[in-house]
Amino acid sequence: MDAQELANAVIAGDRRALARSITLVESARADHRAKAIELVALARAHGRQALRIGLSGTPGVGKSTFIEAFGMQLLARGLRVAVLAVDPSSARSGGSILGDKTRMDRLSREPAAFIRPSPSQAQMGGVARRTREAVALCEAAGFDVVLVETVGVGQSETVVAEICDLFLLLLAPAGGDELQGVKRGIMEMADMILVNKADGDLKAAATRTCADYAGALRLLRHRPQDPEGFPKAMMVSAVAETGMAEAWAEMSALADWRRANGHWDSRRATQAQHWFREEVRQGLLAVLDREPAKGSMTALGAKVLAGTLSPEAAAAEMLALLGRS
Amino acid sequence: MDAQELANAVIAGDRRALARSITLVESARADHRAKAIELVALARAHGRQALRIGLSGTPGVGKSTFIEAFGMQLLARGLRVAVLAVDPSSARSGGSILGDKTRMDRLSREPAAFIRPSPSQAQMGGVARRTREAVALCEAAGFDVVLVETVGVGQSETVVAEICDLFLLLLAPAGGDELQGVKRGIMEMADMILVNKADGDLKAAATRTCADYAGALRLLRHRPQDPEGFPKAMMVSAVAETGMAEAWAEMSALADWRRANGHWDSRRATQAQHWFREEVRQGLLAVLDREPAKGSMTALGAKVLAGTLSPEAAAAEMLALLGRS
Repeated sequence: MDAQELANAVIAGDRRALARSITLVESARADHRAKAIELVALARAHGRQALRIGLSGTPGVGKSTFIEAFGMQLLARGLRVAVLAVDPSSARSGGSILGDKTRMDRLSREPAAFIRPSPSQAQMGGVARRTREAVALCEAAGFDVVLVETVGVGQSETVVAEICDLFLLLLAPAGGDELQGVKRGIMEMADMILVNKADGDLKAAATRTCADYAGALRLLRHRPQDPEGFPKAMMVSAVAETGMAEAWAEMSALADWRRANGHWDSRRATQAQHWFREEVRQGLLAVLDREPAKGSMTALGAKVLAGTLSPEAAAAEMLALLGRS
Repeated sequence: MDAQELANAVIAGDRRALARSITLVESARADHRAKAIELVALARAHGRQALRIGLSGTPGVGKSTFIEAFGMQLLARGLRVAVLAVDPSSARSGGSILGDKTRMDRLSREPAAFIRPSPSQAQMGGVARRTREAVALCEAAGFDVVLVETVGVGQSETVVAEICDLFLLLLAPAGGDELQGVKRGIMEMADMILVNKADGDLKAAATRTCADYAGALRLLRHRPQDPEGFPKAMMVSAVAETGMAEAWAEMSALADWRRANGHWDSRRATQAQHWFREEVRQGLLAVLDREPAKGSMTALGAKVLAGTLSPEAAAAEMLALLGRS
């Protein structure tokens, strides 16, 4: 199928075409890339928009269980749900989040749900582009909600926040472990903090933790893109499936408010500009991964490692080779 | 003075020459840059090495007070101490850490100490290079210890860890505030965690916090560059000036062990290679900050913002203009 046929099939709701299309945008081959750009442009031109929800949380916080329970809730409301993953660590660890679809076995069997594991990719730039394009394809395919999951490491939260309309942070009740703490920068990106595991023995700890985060969020500067009361901390239990309806009600209210007040479109426009700049940067740096620059980098790097050339002198030599000195 | 005269003066211990040299490496002017590269090469060629200690900690943890107390201790041992700052936020906030030397008024009056506030710089790449070069100048000037202070935001810890021989994390005793938590990635960079404010009412909390971090550090994978017992958590009080001698003894022991076991040189070599690659990347990207590329970026970015051009199409156009499509 050419790009137009593939786009038509995606827009018609053909799941296999969607899966093939995402595989296409993940490919690094030049001919694939050209076709992918055409396909994504056609998908975007169709104009459908989903609510893009970013979800971050450290391993063990119950992300998969939450996504399954939350996703099932959305399906019960007649909404179609796609789940994508951004996993910067998959290349290193060999593993990947969402790699095991059986972790969401109910959701993965639903015809109105689509789950796509994270591919093995080394570069955050590549991961970001692939995710943005996969989101665009899911929107064209008519999904109402696109959930983008990430594990809380390094830059991945920033990437997901720059792709999504809403950004959620899923946290566990804090016990004696001070180390689960959240950096201020991540807090500032969050539209909602969901304290998971508000059930059984952990209920009391979850209540305390939720109050702590609610207090911390109140200390943050009010953002113009937020109505009164946001960002907000709430409790959920993915296992007991409680708090899901309340969380969705808040997300919908926030999304509606932003749409009504012009923040929705301006956020997407700002994100597009961000990704334009990022694409240009990645495109410029890509020269270093190709010959002959790649070989020169290796040779000069070896001299620097051996101490026979200073980093600055080696860089100057390399930039001269690239015609950029 | 030309680069050679300036280098000679720095090496002879002339403090004003050192201050002027650091101002030179901070300059973005092309003629200054050429002279700075020559100067730094001469300084490096002199071969003196200091113990480079990176120190990170969030605002309010008592970094300045610690550096002053710790620095005075080192002076009392006959060591010469330089203090530099890496403050990625200074460009944004207008303020800067170490901006107010009176926060370290005892240390700043000592002839064997040299304190250099962080300049206002926008780009982390620029901050990193300036700091590396300033460290090299301080080493040539005969300082025995170069302390590089950073505030715990974003990438600055990674930058400082990639510049220094030892990396310390200064933390406050944890109370009910779960948010002071430390990300695992930062923990993994630390050679020592120092829990400050182990005095008065906070002594008990500091003891508990120190034990918590010690436990957390034991869970980390053993690193080949560490002797038995490292990374390590200790208590200090910058105000009561306790724990300083013990902390210094541990730092010296760690540095000696690494020197004796080949890790010192290999770490510096790996760091040099890292900075070579980073310099090349920054050099490539610098084209975007100059005309005519700068104007094209602005024009294309405006179209993306207005929604008349997709991020991918705009990036492709820009890269074609740059001859990199």
